[in-house]
Amino acid sequence: MQQLANYHKEHKDRYLEELMDWLRIPSVSADPAFKKDVVKAAEFLKKKLVKAGLDNVSINPTKGHPIVYGEKIIDKKLPTVLVYGHYDVQPPDPLDLWESGPFEPVVKKTKKHPKGAIFARGACDDKGQVYMHVKAFEAMMKNKALPCNVKYMIEGEEEVGSVNLEAFCKKNKKKLACDVILISDTSIIDNKTPSITTGLRGMTYVEVEVTGANRDLHSGVYGGAVANPINVLSKMIATLQDKKNKITIPGFYDDVEVVSRKERKAMNEAPFSINAYKRELKIKEVHGEDKYTTLERTSIRPTLDVNGMWGGYIGEGAKTVLPSKAFAKISMRLVPNQDPDKITKLFSDYFKSIAPPSVRVKVTPHHGGHPVVTPTNSIEYKAAHLAMKETFKKDPIPQRSGGSIPIVALFEKVLGVKSVLMGFGLNTDDIHSPNEHYGLFNFYKGIETIPFYFHYYTELKKK
Amino acid sequence: MQQLANYHKEHKDRYLEELMDWLRIPSVSADPAFKKDVVKAAEFLKKKLVKAGLDNVSINPTKGHPIVYGEKIIDKKLPTVLVYGHYDVQPPDPLDLWESGPFEPVVKKTKKHPKGAIFARGACDDKGQVYMHVKAFEAMMKNKALPCNVKYMIEGEEEVGSVNLEAFCKKNKKKLACDVILISDTSIIDNKTPSITTGLRGMTYVEVEVTGANRDLHSGVYGGAVANPINVLSKMIATLQDKKNKITIPGFYDDVEVVSRKERKAMNEAPFSINAYKRELKIKEVHGEDKYTTLERTSIRPTLDVNGMWGGYIGEGAKTVLPSKAFAKISMRLVPNQDPDKITKLFSDYFKSIAPPSVRVKVTPHHGGHPVVTPTNSIEYKAAHLAMKETFKKDPIPQRSGGSIPIVALFEKVLGVKSVLMGFGLNTDDIHSPNEHYGLFNFYKGIETIPFYFHYYTELKKK
Repeated sequence: MQQLANYHKEHKDRYLEELMDWLRIPSVSADPAFKKDVVKAAEFLKKKLVKAGLDNVSINPTKGHPIVYGEKIIDKKLPTVLVYGHYDVQPPDPLDLWESGPFEPVVKKTKKHPKGAIFARGACDDKGQVYMHVKAFEAMMKNKALPCNVKYMIEGEEEVGSVNLEAFCKKNKKKLACDVILISDTSIIDNKTPSITTGLRGMTYVEVEVTGANRDLHSGVYGGAVANPINVLSKMIATLQDKKNKITIPGFYDDVEVVSRKERKAMNEAPFSINAYKRELKIKEVHGEDKYTTLERTSIRPTLDVNGMWGGYIGEGAKTVLPSKAFAKISMRLVPNQDPDKITKLFSDYFKSIAPPSVRVKVTPHHGGHPVVTPTNSIEYKAAHLAMKETFKKDPIPQRSGGSIPIVALFEKVLGVKSVLMGFGLNTDDIHSPNEHYGLFNFYKGIETIPFYFHYYTELKKK
Repeated sequence: MQQLANYHKEHKDRYLEELMDWLRIPSVSADPAFKKDVVKAAEFLKKKLVKAGLDNVSINPTKGHPIVYGEKIIDKKLPTVLVYGHYDVQPPDPLDLWESGPFEPVVKKTKKHPKGAIFARGACDDKGQVYMHVKAFEAMMKNKALPCNVKYMIEGEEEVGSVNLEAFCKKNKKKLACDVILISDTSIIDNKTPSITTGLRGMTYVEVEVTGANRDLHSGVYGGAVANPINVLSKMIATLQDKKNKITIPGFYDDVEVVSRKERKAMNEAPFSINAYKRELKIKEVHGEDKYTTLERTSIRPTLDVNGMWGGYIGEGAKTVLPSKAFAKISMRLVPNQDPDKITKLFSDYFKSIAPPSVRVKVTPHHGGHPVVTPTNSIEYKAAHLAMKETFKKDPIPQRSGGSIPIVALFEKVLGVKSVLMGFGLNTDDIHSPNEHYGLFNFYKGIETIPFYFHYYTELKKK
């Protein structure tokens, strides 16, 4: 492993430069305007994987954006680790809040990252974390230190719900056969407190449209007599949560796993300062479901958030329009054992039921994913524990995350394989926000830790 | 008057062509991008007024858009009519709902306008109606039929609250001295049922901003624990009206004039079909304040409408963002004797009071105006009645309108002069909406009627 450390040291600057080149390609999967850039990002990745020494590297078209696949089989008797990640990124809006261009990466020092962080859309989520794997693999190959077989499957649609990955997995079951799936798309508690994600929330994402009259009207002539879809939609959204911030959709909580008192106690013992949290977000008060702490609200409890809403005149100045339509994008984060399809239907039925007769309502489901919880006593998990302990010199803490990687439940269902969520980001890295960044410490720590995972996993499997 | 009729007949097509040329100039006052076009529209008007025979025509700069003024004093002993109107127009958004370009006027036949209507932004509100006055004046001049003194004051900021007109009136009190102000910026019931507007609602228009965290956040990582400004704003807006669609702002109804049972009965006897109304708007049900009819809701009752709302991700596809900010533009139509400044303050205080401690709220007033009611037994009103009776062969019905022309109350306060609201549009002309239009019947009927107003007003004043 000393040899690897030397190699990393020697190629450190190149690792970073290559990542920055990749970050310059705006691979925004949600917006059709970026379709060509998404393909360009896939081609960039393919080239680097081939150069690192991977075999059979291919760009696999789907109905949406392509999936990059490659493998290195050194001995069929050895275990196989499949690395999953994504090269697509969230849209960069709102652009005016970025301090530097979202696709013009720069390295700047911050309080949390005194050694510097790369600022760009996708720096942490997930190009930066995928690139740690590319470089860790390169180092293992160049130093003849690869202890097992590896496969890489990096997709381009994670930010839009991985809509075509299930079909790809089903069609390529044999090719994708493996013993464990390793994913770096999550966070650690802080740079001195490593952690491994043992739970992810699921998701349901819908778009709603409320229509009043058949056209925009003058609010003086018709105001007060014809339903205003913005007022109506506001009221409908308000109805979805009660005074205690509980979600009012009938049946919504029916399948929610009850977490034991003991587990909740352990969870709340993780290092966390509510004052630092509020200070960092510049808020006077947190806001959430009654009788749960902030750590619980963002991990073991389901949520409902409007991610976008619009209607009427949103330009400068005043326009007295009574709009014909109002829209909202609404997501619900789900916890074990909620089923996204069932929740989507409960939402849709309830939402239509609360609409007054003066409007028409349309609900369009976008995408969803199942929540997951991974055991901490498996070989997969233990290998991650040992790898992080090796590089951080500290035991990592198992932790449930509030985010969703719908694909984890899918892998279990289609490939029958468990995933390990060994990510290196920080919650404060502003993923999905303006000024997303990724610490250089975290980038290099990931590259250092990954080969230890391969090592320990292979060792533990031998026993 | 036969001479005038012949002149109109001869110049009919030119009248229309000139109006269409004027409509091609996008004089959108709300959007700074159109500043030059607003000036261009003023210059066009000046040229036409000079050509029609008006004296001392000037373009008067203000802090915003200029005011066009001109006069013809034939005899100081005769009464003076001041014509007020506006050459600015509403923004054309949403552009994709226009069947032809908003600034590319075309004449098309419709059900309500079997003889054709001009489709363009400003066709009815108010360029088309102002141009009737320009052409009526031209005809009177060319046929030596002007019976009194006239003044014209046509402004460029009506759609943004006439913010600089008060200062102009105060500064030019002597120049603007007159006996009555004639305004064509309202509607008739239908082309067989003339009516004169005897009341206008006032207005308060505010923009609100709700801020949660200091930046956009990932809804997985923070969702459920940090206030979502869209959810919060929705709830706050929902709070502004109760189940009976009464506005909940404390004190809001305190000064509302109570209209007598008798007046309400008369009002509800105007020709109106609720089924035709619903069919025309393609709605199943109307929606408004409990215990009032549609005609009452749009005339004698105050309202609260969200004219625009936005926040979070509003592009294509799905983005799981927990936004930092959400915004809404909210207008309230006021009735006698509500005071716009008082209502703005009541709104602002209440809105801030219902915000949870997890967000910050900013309220910015845009513009306002006082409600007005004009008497039906005055000479000003009687002249309009006789003029319309002459050309429609039917008694016009006095009617309160739901819209606002804030300037009417201002004229009374600053110049001490009453206004007469003799407009020729239809409520179905889609003013402020895509596909705004103005019937050719209405345009020509206005040109025909206006000289009768001057005639009868002068006659009645002599008595």
